[in-house]
Amino acid sequence: MLSPALPERLGRVVSLLARLPGVGDKTAQRYALFLATTDERVTRELGEALVGLRDCVRPCVRCGHVAEREPDHEGPVLCAICRDRRRDPSLLCVVARVQDLLAIERSGAMRGRYFVLGRLLSPLEGVGPEHLGLDRLRAIVEGRFAAEDAPVREVLCATPPSVDGEATALLLARELEPLGAQVTRIASGVPHGGDLEFADQVTLGRAIEGRRKLG
Amino acid sequence: MLSPALPERLGRVVSLLARLPGVGDKTAQRYALFLATTDERVTRELGEALVGLRDCVRPCVRCGHVAEREPDHEGPVLCAICRDRRRDPSLLCVVARVQDLLAIERSGAMRGRYFVLGRLLSPLEGVGPEHLGLDRLRAIVEGRFAAEDAPVREVLCATPPSVDGEATALLLARELEPLGAQVTRIASGVPHGGDLEFADQVTLGRAIEGRRKLG
Repeated sequence: MLSPALPERLGRVVSLLARLPGVGDKTAQRYALFLATTDERVTRELGEALVGLRDCVRPCVRCGHVAEREPDHEGPVLCAICRDRRRDPSLLCVVARVQDLLAIERSGAMRGRYFVLGRLLSPLEGVGPEHLGLDRLRAIVEGRFAAEDAPVREVLCATPPSVDGEATALLLARELEPLGAQVTRIASGVPHGGDLEFADQVTLGRAIEGRRKLG
Repeated sequence: MLSPALPERLGRVVSLLARLPGVGDKTAQRYALFLATTDERVTRELGEALVGLRDCVRPCVRCGHVAEREPDHEGPVLCAICRDRRRDPSLLCVVARVQDLLAIERSGAMRGRYFVLGRLLSPLEGVGPEHLGLDRLRAIVEGRFAAEDAPVREVLCATPPSVDGEATALLLARELEPLGAQVTRIASGVPHGGDLEFADQVTLGRAIEGRRKLG
């Protein structure tokens, strides 16, 4: 319950902060009171960073990772990983969420590029193959997404080892192997039912080194 | 560890969010990615609310609670509780933090005004009586803070039932009883070592009804 004793403007900040994942009204109120009483510059700087954030941070048109653009840039935006020419373009790592991509980057075991599905197959939640951006993924794998592209040799499915994650990996194997790519799966070093974002770096590194052919 | 794979602007949002109480780098990153991918209006609205927050939300000059002022208002700002003429000005409830004030307001058992200390006596952390705003508190208790004021009849110490909270309550009794006010303490309905902010409303209501004379 929000207190009516809070100023209206602070109450609005509380209700906006309560939209953050895993944040309820009491935690949001704690954050808001901190922002109302801490060093004034911190609150203002955070506010200004958020006002401009969505003009500057966009999904990468190739992989779906977060990418930065200058405010006056109009063309399609590629993320830092897709722009990095030292990355192996013949190896593509498919993840469910940007958080999973960042966790794998921290392990240092992936030298290829990524593809962020954004979600997993989930019949119970009404998520079918048509929601996973497979057309774009097929174009990348076949090497026809951009003019300078070559076909992808290996697609590593780094979806989580859950029911939905395994189903998604099997779908990817069925869809992408006919295109000539080898589809592999991260090893079961990651505990079943676990969350990739919170796996330690060694575990994630081993899971990538021990990947196996799928299907 | 922050990932270098994040756009710089998003990295700055992560490091600002990590200043929130109880928020580490991973939680801050989760919040930032949510703000970078959710409905664009939510991010912008939160940003705009934070940019203007500190111009509009100030500590109440009387009690220290958060108070709202119009951006072009220049004079001293009183909070909604201090402005409320239905409040009993002869009863003053002293709390450590604004969160504690809000918790007591939710209990509905306090019909007087408040005074927010901002902190508790803590010799270990170097917090002495000089850090608690006692001059302003004495002026309020003696009825000489504002022209229309009358002396306070009862000061209820609602500092938490911890070592620092009890020490603060004893200090207040020693300082304020010579001024003619009766100093009371909330009942021990609140569990020892607990946190007022998270106590339930019934417990807080009982603690206020069962208050006892101090010293």
